Amino acid sequence: MTPAAALDLASVFVFALTGALAASRAQLDIVGFLFFSAITAVGGGTVRDLLLDRNPVFWIAKPGILLAVAVAAVLVYFTAHMVESRARWLAWLDAAALAIAVPAGLTVAISLGYTGPIAVLMGVVTGTMGGLMRDVVANEVPMVLRQGELYVTAAAAGALLGTFVYAALGLAPALIASAAVTFGLRAGSLAFGWQLPVYRSRPPR
Amino acid sequence: MTPAAALDLASVFVFALTGALAASRAQLDIVGFLFFSAITAVGGGTVRDLLLDRNPVFWIAKPGILLAVAVAAVLVYFTAHMVESRARWLAWLDAAALAIAVPAGLTVAISLGYTGPIAVLMGVVTGTMGGLMRDVVANEVPMVLRQGELYVTAAAAGALLGTFVYAALGLAPALIASAAVTFGLRAGSLAFGWQLPVYRSRPPR
Amino acid sequence: MTPAAALDLASVFVFALTGALAASRAQLDIVGFLFFSAITAVGGGTVRDLLLDRNPVFWIAKPGILLAVAVAAVLVYFTAHMVESRARWLAWLDAAALAIAVPAGLTVAISLGYTGPIAVLMGVVTGTMGGLMRDVVANEVPMVLRQGELYVTAAAAGALLGTFVYAALGLAPALIASAAVTFGLRAGSLAFGWQLPVYRSRPPR
Repeated sequence: MTPAAALDLASVFVFALTGALAASRAQLDIVGFLFFSAITAVGGGTVRDLLLDRNPVFWIAKPGILLAVAVAAVLVYFTAHMVESRARWLAWLDAAALAIAVPAGLTVAISLGYTGPIAVLMGVVTGTMGGLMRDVVANEVPMVLRQGELYVTAAAAGALLGTFVYAALGLAPALIASAAVTFGLRAGSLAFGWQLPVYRSRPPR
Repeated sequence: MTPAAALDLASVFVFALTGALAASRAQLDIVGFLFFSAITAVGGGTVRDLLLDRNPVFWIAKPGILLAVAVAAVLVYFTAHMVESRARWLAWLDAAALAIAVPAGLTVAISLGYTGPIAVLMGVVTGTMGGLMRDVVANEVPMVLRQGELYVTAAAAGALLGTFVYAALGLAPALIASAAVTFGLRAGSLAFGWQLPVYRSRPPR
Repeated sequence: MTPAAALDLASVFVFALTGALAASRAQLDIVGFLFFSAITAVGGGTVRDLLLDRNPVFWIAKPGILLAVAVAAVLVYFTAHMVESRARWLAWLDAAALAIAVPAGLTVAISLGYTGPIAVLMGVVTGTMGGLMRDVVANEVPMVLRQGELYVTAAAAGALLGTFVYAALGLAPALIASAAVTFGLRAGSLAFGWQLPVYRSRPPR
């Protein structure tokens, strides 16, 4: 399994858990869990593959990856009632998935020969688009809109650092740095309220 | 006309009716009707064609199909005030469109050589994505989120059965079985409240 | 720079301004501004390029275009507090961007050999999809849903006229006519309340 495929599989599984949690909040049936798990899990990588004209898209090339989606959906369906706050689990699992998906997107871009801003953007797209689709379809406030939280910022910082480390030290350190920075910033924001200055203004909107 | 093209045309027309009904609920002008009809009618098949790298997408290959969209939009613009409940018509026409679009997606996937889970998913994608776009853009609760209704479940069951019948008996029976099961389950859910167990839990969301 | 590339660049910049204004209304940080600017600015052209199988999509082919997105986002971040009504600026800048993006979409379609309804639709898609994504992700009422305003109608009229003028007089007059009609109708709607008859009905929705 290539690093790109391994990272895609891991991010698919963790994002699928968050999709299933969103389905649990909407009180759907098991097929609804599968649907939300699938959209969330493959959404970001699919947009990336379409943008890069990678044919076929990753989960059509390796449909076995969809098993991970099914396992995650069923697992959450039968265990989600055990956790105290599903909203909190959703946010933290999403942070983990983001931190895996950003290097996954980076690896794919690099393997296709992109290194500069396009590689950074593919990291951000792969990291954020699946969760964004989940939130839009589930009628939840998209994480990208949550005021005073680092979300796209965490992904962008991780992807940016990853491209520089790749140029300097190679792929493996780049993936580790990118995952660590993405997760670190997102986790710091969730746990300690880290944020960048947000736009404020007095005049009417 | 191939079976795939005929099914695409039929699902385009019926989904376009539902898009126009959504436009009527938002009190748009005739171009707004055309816009919503078009998004709903070709949305699912377009996502399918992009995922399968089918070039050009079906309505660019045969722009004549867009006439069906225009006819549906104009028809609804001038007749929708005659029906008693547009929400009910929308739900039932959507059920019919779903039951046509699922076998349409299946046929395209089969004609490109896919048979297993990818064929099933292409049926589900073709069936659900156009209506999902309609609901998201129209600010309505997506049908996939309606609690205790069979929607994705109906599409998935129809698509799944279709792939098995195709392997056993060939294309025509597969399409009929897939349409019948999709419509049957969705109609049973609308008319009699058929549903699968939904996720419930006491802890806070 | 080809006319298509110049128009894409101009519409990217102005749409990016509107994306940043949406981010300011949501009180995001600077990376949130960049994210919304980017989605809005390249959304329409990206959908167009995917539909037409134009590889790579325009901003991957010329990543320099993304600089315009960054400049627009930073500009709005530091100046938006100076304007009296950001909602009004957003509507008017969106009108300008629409009027540039419609001929941009038309040019690309024509350059690929499309002239009839597909060229018209590519104008409409390029004009409307970026702003639609902005509004859906930002949880604002999509401009296409605003009752009694010409929006898709303005884009469709401009695109339609453009294809006829192209057949009669060539590309340059077509682009000018298309931009002028799109902006004129949208501006007339914003300033003077121009509208088409909207659907009304007594029965329950």
